Amino acid sequence: MSIYKLPKRKSNFSEWYNQVIQKAELADYAPVRGCMVVRPYGWAIWENIQKALDKRFKETGHVNAAFPLFIPMSFLEKEKDHVKGFSPELAVVTYGGGQKLEEPLVVRPTSETIIGHMYAKWIKSYRDLPLLINQWANVVRWEMRTRLFLRTLEFYWQEGHTAHATAEEAKEETMRMLETYKDFAVNEAAVPVISGQKSESEKFAGALRSYTIEAMMGDTRALQSGTSHNLGQNFAKAFNIQYLDHNNELQYCWTTSWGLSTRFIGAIIMTHGDDQGLILPPRLAPIQVVIVPIFRNAEEKSIVMPVAEMALEQLQGIRTKLDNRTELTPGFKFNDWEMRGVPIRIEIGPKDVNNKTITIARRDKPNKEDKKQVSADQLKPTILELLDAIHDSLLKRATAFRDTHIFTPDNYNDFKEAIVKGWAYSWWCGAPACEAQIKEDTKATTRCIPFDQTKGKGKCIVCGKEALEKAYFSRGY
Amino acid sequence: MSIYKLPKRKSNFSEWYNQVIQKAELADYAPVRGCMVVRPYGWAIWENIQKALDKRFKETGHVNAAFPLFIPMSFLEKEKDHVKGFSPELAVVTYGGGQKLEEPLVVRPTSETIIGHMYAKWIKSYRDLPLLINQWANVVRWEMRTRLFLRTLEFYWQEGHTAHATAEEAKEETMRMLETYKDFAVNEAAVPVISGQKSESEKFAGALRSYTIEAMMGDTRALQSGTSHNLGQNFAKAFNIQYLDHNNELQYCWTTSWGLSTRFIGAIIMTHGDDQGLILPPRLAPIQVVIVPIFRNAEEKSIVMPVAEMALEQLQGIRTKLDNRTELTPGFKFNDWEMRGVPIRIEIGPKDVNNKTITIARRDKPNKEDKKQVSADQLKPTILELLDAIHDSLLKRATAFRDTHIFTPDNYNDFKEAIVKGWAYSWWCGAPACEAQIKEDTKATTRCIPFDQTKGKGKCIVCGKEALEKAYFSRGY
Repeated sequence: MSIYKLPKRKSNFSEWYNQVIQKAELADYAPVRGCMVVRPYGWAIWENIQKALDKRFKETGHVNAAFPLFIPMSFLEKEKDHVKGFSPELAVVTYGGGQKLEEPLVVRPTSETIIGHMYAKWIKSYRDLPLLINQWANVVRWEMRTRLFLRTLEFYWQEGHTAHATAEEAKEETMRMLETYKDFAVNEAAVPVISGQKSESEKFAGALRSYTIEAMMGDTRALQSGTSHNLGQNFAKAFNIQYLDHNNELQYCWTTSWGLSTRFIGAIIMTHGDDQGLILPPRLAPIQVVIVPIFRNAEEKSIVMPVAEMALEQLQGIRTKLDNRTELTPGFKFNDWEMRGVPIRIEIGPKDVNNKTITIARRDKPNKEDKKQVSADQLKPTILELLDAIHDSLLKRATAFRDTHIFTPDNYNDFKEAIVKGWAYSWWCGAPACEAQIKEDTKATTRCIPFDQTKGKGKCIVCGKEALEKAYFSRGY
Repeated sequence: MSIYKLPKRKSNFSEWYNQVIQKAELADYAPVRGCMVVRPYGWAIWENIQKALDKRFKETGHVNAAFPLFIPMSFLEKEKDHVKGFSPELAVVTYGGGQKLEEPLVVRPTSETIIGHMYAKWIKSYRDLPLLINQWANVVRWEMRTRLFLRTLEFYWQEGHTAHATAEEAKEETMRMLETYKDFAVNEAAVPVISGQKSESEKFAGALRSYTIEAMMGDTRALQSGTSHNLGQNFAKAFNIQYLDHNNELQYCWTTSWGLSTRFIGAIIMTHGDDQGLILPPRLAPIQVVIVPIFRNAEEKSIVMPVAEMALEQLQGIRTKLDNRTELTPGFKFNDWEMRGVPIRIEIGPKDVNNKTITIARRDKPNKEDKKQVSADQLKPTILELLDAIHDSLLKRATAFRDTHIFTPDNYNDFKEAIVKGWAYSWWCGAPACEAQIKEDTKATTRCIPFDQTKGKGKCIVCGKEALEKAYFSRGY
């Protein structure tokens, strides 16, 4: 397989995805089944995601901490839905220091239980509330069918865990963090998302209610991109998380949890990429601008390189790379940086130097006629503006793509056709039986019941009975 | 136990250490034996350590990535010293997804093996070298006797792993990163360290040579605070990490690894703390300045609070907290922030407001007579200067303490006495038998053979035979 040739997205999206990850060196397969190595370029995207989210978490009063990787098996069993949901996916440590353990330890699939245990110890009175802690961590879920970034045995995420004095505050927190994810997705990743509530069958194991942001990938499948759970008092009761209220009476707390993972890198790849490779949203791109000097001989080099270095100098504060590799042609470099999705490429050749211009190419508009010459002394403001323009353009393009692939079928036959072409937005009576029927017939699941819908009444797309809400249905990742 | 009363360091250093961690809310015991929860205040120190180190790693050309938590047992067995050193400390996953695994998976105690496997895949030619990757990760070592931060089953660290074309480059890298650790310890943590080589018996399992920075704690014991290993070609040969050189011939790489962990938080606590609690070095302190407003009634409050808020505003860019908790007295707050080691406390009372002054107290000089009144309009420059002065003062004090507790005994009897009072710096013939004798007689180990010693000849402190080098000996953590 050629280094810079990918399968077409239209003909084989799945293989395009696998290859672009390998060829852009985002990640690699680990020698343990279903595990991944996140390579430096992929990890740099994650670090930018972390920065963007962590800032938002801290601005909303959260602090970071670190809870243990290992959880006693008995902890999971304390919340019955939780253990039921997670027990098929557990990795279990049975030996430590050469000895068989008395109680097996689970490698955390998520941390509600162990954090619940600690919260019960730390929280004494209403003065200790709300308790707003996040952790950046690795978790393990023993998945059978794995895909790089989308579903791996081990993955990286943040998990927020909060405890509150009232149901109302817990609800507000759940919504605030979902809104935070949406803001991040739209304004940092240029990924348009639809937020709403998960159906009962799709909610988090142990939650009262789960909320989600859902994004449409380039093959029209849905990707759950971040979730926020209102846990009610389920974990508070299982772990005895109680506080003394103002009247000195003991009350159970109300808790929430919310998470966003390295899966989001998959969302970025599949939302923006094209047949030439990645297209990274400027605010998360590890390299925002690459400078490729163009020369054919030593004389041209001596003219071009000082200008290239001056451009690099001028662009301080913007993540810029000067590609001064000597053994590669400019054409090879263009392909290389296109594969890696760098938003802006600057070309500087002898002609540019003579004209005191610089040539700028946008990754999201790779045609030659979209290249622009700009005056060298206007470089930095031009680039700053362009980075924002590219962000807006990516978001607009993805939103348009999504909106043209959401259908509102009139009957169940049309519904089934819609699912092949995209998402269906349909009345649903709320019955699990109808949801199950859809899944059986189309492999589509309920993605979410969106907040943003006008109240009304309709007929359930499956059974025809009265429905009060519409839901999005689609095949998912 | 009282909230703000600690055991005296002189009479029970070990118990002082445990209690200060709990009372300053740095960490807590997890429900799994030997594991810890790093609480938000402790984790904030680690985040500052991460920032300070990560900046240095990136400046020296390193990039971050993430390698899997799970390592096939067979990988460890490929390097014989490595498996011998680590096998007593392994946590082993034997079940996944409800099934017994064909090959048990080790929870990484360190990642030379799995990274070696990936490097063998990624490195093809001299053009791919040097490969300079770091990861921030959790690792697990099944320790029998554990202490918060110092030795826990799971801990957090960074591990750098690099591959080079020549032995010389690998050696340079090993030294560069040791020097980086030293620079960090001294200039960020105000922890004076002595750098040198580990003895054969103390080196990393699988290394050719190990280097260390060693710090003296407040009870005079030594703490190994960061290590850098020249792995020679041991792992390259075990994992077949090879490259084509300029002559198109296949060569084995030379590799290094280097790590610094949350153990360093223990070093900070034990180097600087006093009987009132933590003293945090200003450049790593999560809160550098705390403002405590002082008032007895609503009228005074209305005078004091606006000035306190103005001070907070002025100190933007400095990590400042305004302690506006209403149910606590100023005296309680003073104790609280002293326990937590905040370098500077600002007190603002009605008298200060009248005089247009602000009262400043240094955590490292807690006596009343060391408090200073400064003019309110000079607040920020005063604080900035003072943060540096406190850093210098902490470093000076710790260095003086260390130097007065390093002895150069003339004979083995004096040596044994020296070990009770501090470190011994003595000629050593290099024989493992002499090292073992010292350990048996005094519990002291070879800390390092320092780089910084004048060449000469002496008599081994144990056997009296000719010795070419001096080494530091002490009891360690």
